[in-house]
Amino acid sequence: MGNPPLGGDLSRLRQLNALSTIRALRGSAPATLSALSARTGLSRPSLKEVVGELTSLGWVEEVPPTSGGMGRPARRYRFRADRGHLVGIDIGAHNVRAALSNLDGTVLAETRQAVVPETPVRERMEAIGRAVGGCLALTGLTMADVWTVAVGTTGIVTPEGVVTYSAGIPAWTGLDLAGLLGAMFPCEVLIENDSRLAALAEARRGVARGARDVVFLHVGRRMGTGLIIDGKLHRGFGAAAGEIVMLPQARWFDAPDHLNNCPVVPEGTPVEDAASHTLAAARDGDPAALAAVERYVDDLAVGVAAIVLVLDPEIAVLGGGFSRSADVLLPPLRRRLEAVCLRMPELRASTLGDECVVFGAIDHAVDHLDRQLFTADSGTSLPVPLTRDAVSRS
Amino acid sequence: MGNPPLGGDLSRLRQLNALSTIRALRGSAPATLSALSARTGLSRPSLKEVVGELTSLGWVEEVPPTSGGMGRPARRYRFRADRGHLVGIDIGAHNVRAALSNLDGTVLAETRQAVVPETPVRERMEAIGRAVGGCLALTGLTMADVWTVAVGTTGIVTPEGVVTYSAGIPAWTGLDLAGLLGAMFPCEVLIENDSRLAALAEARRGVARGARDVVFLHVGRRMGTGLIIDGKLHRGFGAAAGEIVMLPQARWFDAPDHLNNCPVVPEGTPVEDAASHTLAAARDGDPAALAAVERYVDDLAVGVAAIVLVLDPEIAVLGGGFSRSADVLLPPLRRRLEAVCLRMPELRASTLGDECVVFGAIDHAVDHLDRQLFTADSGTSLPVPLTRDAVSRS
Repeated sequence: MGNPPLGGDLSRLRQLNALSTIRALRGSAPATLSALSARTGLSRPSLKEVVGELTSLGWVEEVPPTSGGMGRPARRYRFRADRGHLVGIDIGAHNVRAALSNLDGTVLAETRQAVVPETPVRERMEAIGRAVGGCLALTGLTMADVWTVAVGTTGIVTPEGVVTYSAGIPAWTGLDLAGLLGAMFPCEVLIENDSRLAALAEARRGVARGARDVVFLHVGRRMGTGLIIDGKLHRGFGAAAGEIVMLPQARWFDAPDHLNNCPVVPEGTPVEDAASHTLAAARDGDPAALAAVERYVDDLAVGVAAIVLVLDPEIAVLGGGFSRSADVLLPPLRRRLEAVCLRMPELRASTLGDECVVFGAIDHAVDHLDRQLFTADSGTSLPVPLTRDAVSRS
Repeated sequence: MGNPPLGGDLSRLRQLNALSTIRALRGSAPATLSALSARTGLSRPSLKEVVGELTSLGWVEEVPPTSGGMGRPARRYRFRADRGHLVGIDIGAHNVRAALSNLDGTVLAETRQAVVPETPVRERMEAIGRAVGGCLALTGLTMADVWTVAVGTTGIVTPEGVVTYSAGIPAWTGLDLAGLLGAMFPCEVLIENDSRLAALAEARRGVARGARDVVFLHVGRRMGTGLIIDGKLHRGFGAAAGEIVMLPQARWFDAPDHLNNCPVVPEGTPVEDAASHTLAAARDGDPAALAAVERYVDDLAVGVAAIVLVLDPEIAVLGGGFSRSADVLLPPLRRRLEAVCLRMPELRASTLGDECVVFGAIDHAVDHLDRQLFTADSGTSLPVPLTRDAVSRS
């Protein structure tokens, strides 16, 4: 029920250690002080003090000793991930997805509802409400248990949560999404571009897990990218980073037409299903389909090469609808990148699939929780505490 | 004489405060504990302890009180920036520059020597030795007073300091520059691409001072870029970031030809002076020169737009030889970027001029000193100490 005043109750230096300890405990099995000492680099006496304080504040609890074994077992501690909950929402053109997690980011429930690009704003908002309501019903929780709602949506989103442009959801362009969702949910609401959240999910729990510099490439009927730089979601100064799709020379807006307009697509196929026919035929060696794939990858590769040359990422992850045909797309993409890139990143296909945005929304909410507890003073690179006011619900 | 064992002598938490205090003192006038408390957020008792320890280790000293005024003056402290020295070197195709600074990064002496692109490796190395020797002679110091030599050079440099390609200095391609300079100087040697160091200088002491996300554009006979992301020099996973020049669609390799081959260039003008004639004629309104500038900026803008769309930087700085004609180049560049970029960065012309690389090398050495004292544990975002070994000279 609401965030505890961790920022206010601990001294500044202990807060540093407390955050380090919480991060070491989060998402892992209960740990002894010795194990925590190895993970954090803190001394046992310091850890004992920190763990004691975190326990009294309700963030950490001792786990009953397991039976068996000789002698007195060492005390083990765990992060109380059930103290609060987080909701992630993916607002797409064709689906609204929601997920509910604990403070570890462990997903406890998920819902999905079909919509169409033309669904009016009011009905799409109602679908969002039902998607979240479904997650609450599945877990027996209420909105009072939810600390943060993080939302990913197709389109360009300002830092204030206004959608300035959305090709995928025409009615979204110009919408004050933060205002609408803020009125709907009685907790903090974060709004971000969906490809950025997908990039975060890949770096935290997907095929790029552990990498510091990651490019996520959403390939499908629409194209988008998300960047993780030095382990963090990169938004850019005006939240406009990653929009290489706007570069005319990259020809990304029209690239999917090469797949949609291939002769192998049966007459009468809806445009949203066309590309899958071409990709399947290319996998089977059809010459017309293979030629269409080559033309598509010609265009795709210009934008990808631009991103790779600018950033030199460790890993590039192919996601989005077309990434189900990564076996068809990655070899020709790799050939083109090898011809121009100074250093080739690893190319991998997403395994999170359609859930990458909603998982990324959860991961974004977990990161936000960290920032709420402590934030970095950019002048000194040292974390400094936030006051109670900043930690409380907005 | 050698780095003191700051990493080994202070407890972990005090090290955090010590680094914060050193950063607050560095490059500023002597400060009282109250002033330091305002800058660092540390309490006066904590600061008193930290300043005492830093004083006993020789990093900080008390400054004699100024006379005049009523009552007992507050004690003031300063960072002992004269405890060691740093050398920056810019190895260019036409010049070798060196600068010597104290640990604040305040430049005390500079030298420059002319070379030519064809100067053999051995003679260029001798020029480097003379450039540094000149700085030592100007300040009455010896190499034993120098803790770090940071070098910027034209070309692509591996993390190990090998130049894999240099269009500007043909003999540089394939050279183990780290090996050669390591044999020449009895201290740590850092090697980096020159445009990256120029970007760092612009963000630390140039027209982008204080900005967190900066793109430096070297425009001249050769083109190059350097990126500052979240306040740090961005190298990329394999030190290959910023090389948009390799993107064929950007046409950066041939772009200067538009300026070199303009009819306004007098017959017999050496190619290295040709562009300045065209840029000057364009400033005077010559139609042929203006048309050549438009074609040049057409090409320049593709690569700049790609970088801006990927990163969404706060500021883009135009540096390099052609940036002396920024008044001619920036308006048409701005028009083209406005047509494709979602958000326009500020465009500014460098004011550091030919010294930007050597200043950036000094700033790089200062950053390296910070990292030597303490380094960030990427798993926890908390600084952790290095051992005495890591702090000693390599």
